[in-house]
Amino acid sequence: MKSGDFVLIDYIGKVKDSGEIFDITKEDAAKKEGVYKKEFRYGPVPIIVDADFVLPGLNEAVKEMTIGERKTIELPPEKAFGKRSDELIKLIPETQFRAQGMEPEVGTFITINKLKGKVMSIDGGRIRIDFNHPLAGKTLVYDIEIVGTISEDSEKVKAVVYYFIGVPSEVVQAEVKEKEVDIGFTKKFDILTEAKQTIAETIIKWVGMEKVKFVDVFYKEK
Amino acid sequence: MKSGDFVLIDYIGKVKDSGEIFDITKEDAAKKEGVYKKEFRYGPVPIIVDADFVLPGLNEAVKEMTIGERKTIELPPEKAFGKRSDELIKLIPETQFRAQGMEPEVGTFITINKLKGKVMSIDGGRIRIDFNHPLAGKTLVYDIEIVGTISEDSEKVKAVVYYFIGVPSEVVQAEVKEKEVDIGFTKKFDILTEAKQTIAETIIKWVGMEKVKFVDVFYKEK
Repeated sequence: MKSGDFVLIDYIGKVKDSGEIFDITKEDAAKKEGVYKKEFRYGPVPIIVDADFVLPGLNEAVKEMTIGERKTIELPPEKAFGKRSDELIKLIPETQFRAQGMEPEVGTFITINKLKGKVMSIDGGRIRIDFNHPLAGKTLVYDIEIVGTISEDSEKVKAVVYYFIGVPSEVVQAEVKEKEVDIGFTKKFDILTEAKQTIAETIIKWVGMEKVKFVDVFYKEK
Repeated sequence: MKSGDFVLIDYIGKVKDSGEIFDITKEDAAKKEGVYKKEFRYGPVPIIVDADFVLPGLNEAVKEMTIGERKTIELPPEKAFGKRSDELIKLIPETQFRAQGMEPEVGTFITINKLKGKVMSIDGGRIRIDFNHPLAGKTLVYDIEIVGTISEDSEKVKAVVYYFIGVPSEVVQAEVKEKEVDIGFTKKFDILTEAKQTIAETIIKWVGMEKVKFVDVFYKEK
């Protein structure tokens, strides 16, 4: 695969040491492994090679592969979620939580200033919280399979929309005329201008469009 | 003027008893009367006759008038903001505010469950709040002038957008083709689907469109 390709991949991501599965795209595999979640949307994931859609190490691996190929790769922390940093372990006075009516418990996750951290210990009125990514410092193992590629511009557009806001392609209308695309939805969504901007920039850069139009249509009731 | 007309009106609204001006559309008049506010957007207000854009009494008066005409009308409470209701005066324990870190003061307005009320008195741990509209029970005097009408469909569309979300017409693009209109903005706004729905329904009903399209366009940077 090469830079800019729209590739559909299936994968299973595991922590090397523990064997714990943290990400899996195939429904049957998830059931077999006992990690199936009803609300999760299974199926091959569309990625754009070199567009920062996936971990650097995963992107590199995909570049080396061809359609239909399967491969198991190992990603050291520096090609995955980075090393653990002691500076991201913070001691916070218990009173600070009390004031906000929060009662942290060891082992639970809490969010402070949009950062998610795990409560490590509560001791002498001080709470130790680890704000490292749960997968930081871990070597990951990915089983990857290249399922196919996307070549139609309208399908590429839908893949970008799905990637950024999770709206499945059957709800998205993408009408391409030369270098312009009209994007509509069969259901109504509130999509922030910021998200539209990001989607549009990605489509312009990676699908090669010059004009991206988001369209919301209302009809007279018959 | 008749039902469905798009009419531009200037007006001054006063409380009959006190003479207090609570609404005024002309900048020079506002300055003359000493009620000018820098941040307020002065200028004739577009209304649609019979579309619930203004108080019932104001709507009735406009229907009787012609372009260029001026008229002073008196609206009794029942044609304006209704009579005062004793049931909208509530006694609330002071502790309830303390729990939320609020300290009400007599004469100020506070909002509870999206209802705005005026603090009347604080007595024996109980706070008396008046949730009546400040103009309820008042007879109002309006000086109205019919400045003109809007006949172009695209200008009607802009008037509806302005009425519902306050976006001035110079920022709005309305392209009408037969029974369809494309609405765009020269600046980017986050407009909720609910607001778009209301705007679209009003345009369909009162401008006679069959399809209303909101369009957000992003271009490739040159």
